[in-house]
Amino acid sequence: MSVTTDRLESLVAALPDGVVVTDADRMEKYRQDRAFDPAAELPLAVVRARCTEDVQVAVRWAAAHGVGLVPRGAGTGLSGGATAQAGCLVVSTERMTAIEVDVDTRTAVVEPGALNIAVKQAAAEHGLWYPPDPSSYEICSIGGNVATNAGGLCCVKYGVTTDYVLGLTVVLADGTAVELGGPRLKDVAGLSLVKLFVGSEGTLGIVTRAVLRLVPAQRAPATLVATYASLDDAVSTVLAISRTLRPSMVELMDRASINAVEDVTRMGLDRSAAALLLVQSDEAPPRAAAEIEEVAAICTANGATEVVSTDDPDEAAAFVAARRMVITAMEPRGSLLLEDVGVPLPRLGELVRGIERIAAEHAVEIAVVAHAGDGNTHPLIVHDPTDADQTARAHLAYAAVMDLGIALGGTITGEHGVGRLKKAWLADQVGPDVLDLNRRVKQALDPQGILNPGAVF
Amino acid sequence: MSVTTDRLESLVAALPDGVVVTDADRMEKYRQDRAFDPAAELPLAVVRARCTEDVQVAVRWAAAHGVGLVPRGAGTGLSGGATAQAGCLVVSTERMTAIEVDVDTRTAVVEPGALNIAVKQAAAEHGLWYPPDPSSYEICSIGGNVATNAGGLCCVKYGVTTDYVLGLTVVLADGTAVELGGPRLKDVAGLSLVKLFVGSEGTLGIVTRAVLRLVPAQRAPATLVATYASLDDAVSTVLAISRTLRPSMVELMDRASINAVEDVTRMGLDRSAAALLLVQSDEAPPRAAAEIEEVAAICTANGATEVVSTDDPDEAAAFVAARRMVITAMEPRGSLLLEDVGVPLPRLGELVRGIERIAAEHAVEIAVVAHAGDGNTHPLIVHDPTDADQTARAHLAYAAVMDLGIALGGTITGEHGVGRLKKAWLADQVGPDVLDLNRRVKQALDPQGILNPGAVF
Repeated sequence: MSVTTDRLESLVAALPDGVVVTDADRMEKYRQDRAFDPAAELPLAVVRARCTEDVQVAVRWAAAHGVGLVPRGAGTGLSGGATAQAGCLVVSTERMTAIEVDVDTRTAVVEPGALNIAVKQAAAEHGLWYPPDPSSYEICSIGGNVATNAGGLCCVKYGVTTDYVLGLTVVLADGTAVELGGPRLKDVAGLSLVKLFVGSEGTLGIVTRAVLRLVPAQRAPATLVATYASLDDAVSTVLAISRTLRPSMVELMDRASINAVEDVTRMGLDRSAAALLLVQSDEAPPRAAAEIEEVAAICTANGATEVVSTDDPDEAAAFVAARRMVITAMEPRGSLLLEDVGVPLPRLGELVRGIERIAAEHAVEIAVVAHAGDGNTHPLIVHDPTDADQTARAHLAYAAVMDLGIALGGTITGEHGVGRLKKAWLADQVGPDVLDLNRRVKQALDPQGILNPGAVF
Repeated sequence: MSVTTDRLESLVAALPDGVVVTDADRMEKYRQDRAFDPAAELPLAVVRARCTEDVQVAVRWAAAHGVGLVPRGAGTGLSGGATAQAGCLVVSTERMTAIEVDVDTRTAVVEPGALNIAVKQAAAEHGLWYPPDPSSYEICSIGGNVATNAGGLCCVKYGVTTDYVLGLTVVLADGTAVELGGPRLKDVAGLSLVKLFVGSEGTLGIVTRAVLRLVPAQRAPATLVATYASLDDAVSTVLAISRTLRPSMVELMDRASINAVEDVTRMGLDRSAAALLLVQSDEAPPRAAAEIEEVAAICTANGATEVVSTDDPDEAAAFVAARRMVITAMEPRGSLLLEDVGVPLPRLGELVRGIERIAAEHAVEIAVVAHAGDGNTHPLIVHDPTDADQTARAHLAYAAVMDLGIALGGTITGEHGVGRLKKAWLADQVGPDVLDLNRRVKQALDPQGILNPGAVF
């Protein structure tokens, strides 16, 4: 380590003042992401890149010295994909925030540090929309969204990040920068490398620029909230909706989520409800209201105790905000292990009942919030980090939830990424042959293994 | 070669009667695809696989003997991706046509030999829809669609094949079969390998099963046909539409295409028109009609000489059928070199004017039909194959169109694939670094180079 520390001077000298941070106090905020992995270490240095060339300089230096690189966007990752490692460089893209909207190609050329919300706002100025909407869209960056192939709430109708990435500039493991794809809506020349880099969690290259597809602004949606005395009834409703309709949002909150949000908002949610469904339709009027009426009938037929619909945008926004704040609202209850297990939709009931069972067996609180229409759940496992026994039980529950997801033909991660927290389960999900295939691609693109070492594989 | 011919007996013996075809007459129909590459050769044998295991046996045998494999679906490819090579095995999936629709996960599990139209029909029986719609959808197979990441007419709103592939079973270069993805709407566990195989043109593995996402049935669209005295006006219209609206179809036919179709159909198309636009909206009524009215206003403002709209499904279907038959209608005029050049939308005008110029310079007829809303054109270069000079000029024009597309920041292939006919231009488009990246992935997955040798790279 001392050898590289000595040689760090050559990196500092190769980049302008202020780009390379080595002060321990200043590096502290780059140590963890929102997974708050206690194993996170202080890196060798943080490179606060201003441009593609800065990233290239950092990668070339790292390649020459066999030093690992941990790419970092806004640091909101939930699986530890940006957890810093001792002896590594953290490459932060937080200063690379440029956004250029082109209305003729209906694209936005975006630097990776730009926040998702900023892209949405820039698009909206031109009557356009960037659909992917992680719950954290106000604080997460496009670089992280691309790295994890982030999803969100509208994905049930509008797809995930990869569906909106037309082009990427990527710095490869040897420091070469390549431009893949571009503002072309169809392009099949060569392998689908843009798609390969999306979701690769910084293990194949560092994205420094993305060409994002925009679409016309979403219409104001019609909104429905249905309340259930039974989680099973809510799940049956989701399945019935998904057999015939295609709403623009189908979200589920369980009792613990509802109560956590009500604690914060006092908006009058029914604390006694076992589950709440939030459904939106953004079809052209009057179809939106008609679709919501059809959803309401399905809710009632499947045992909803109360069904409320609204065309009032403020009321709708309040419900959506309530849904988005579940993680934040749960934080006062303790440290959270944030799950992201998804299953084929027909198995959703088995998954949520299994999670209840796991919570009871391990004597921990698990709140469930779900992109229910996608079969993608976020069990939030609460624990007191000062209580070693409870913390151990929380981690056992975290593992048990993934095991259950795999057993149900699902995935350990629908949209957060494998990062460092879930990699021990990747082989269980995909099996040895597919894991080997992953590793062969990784090896081909990063033979030294310097890109986000310890993540995913 | 004689060594492998001798050893072929071991392949014949390893598979049931009728799977391996070695008779020259019977192999003839597997020699070319619809690119009709004159360089196509008779293969060593054709394996008419019935199942994944048959493909595995063929691949293992080929790997053991260093023999190349050319995967083949319905043989409708337009870039020579399935052109047989002497000494190779053609692996035909034509017998693997099973389709299973699951309404709960809203997916279809499809074998690669199933035709696109058969998937659409199977989905329609359940009120569902498989959107990707190559013009050849009645005769092309899902395996070929996946291999080329095929597009079509509705892609301008609904995306291309990759947007609907949730899972794949792939036989790798060593004969291992892997299952990637599955009926899960979100899954980011490991690299995006499903997406990598889509569009890989049989160079990384042989797809034996696909899990396709289905969506609710498309609504009956409202349809508009606009006629232009100037190609530029038609292109201006496309740009103006694409800045504000999102129709479900935006197709363009030039004068040569119009006349070729009118020769066949006598449906009353205006033979004197320089261009015709075909636009559809499938929004919920009454929005569809309103959107088409907005399109009509844009057409008129941009110089359309006639604008006709219809809600009559039969009339609309006739126009769409006319558009789909352009290639067939052009075939009586001579042999065709089928182009597939796409550009960023604002460059569409330069592309179509450049194609006119290239046709004049090389004294060949070039008809243009385009998925105009995607910036994806299909120039059809007509030539008499018995006229060596004209054939040579046609090939020069073919090259010139690709050079032009590249110069305009476009792609040599929007949806047909590189195959064998376009590979000489791939490096010009993507540059040496990206080509090298392609090759590193290829090398990692097919170190012997036995999968579709001579295609793409």
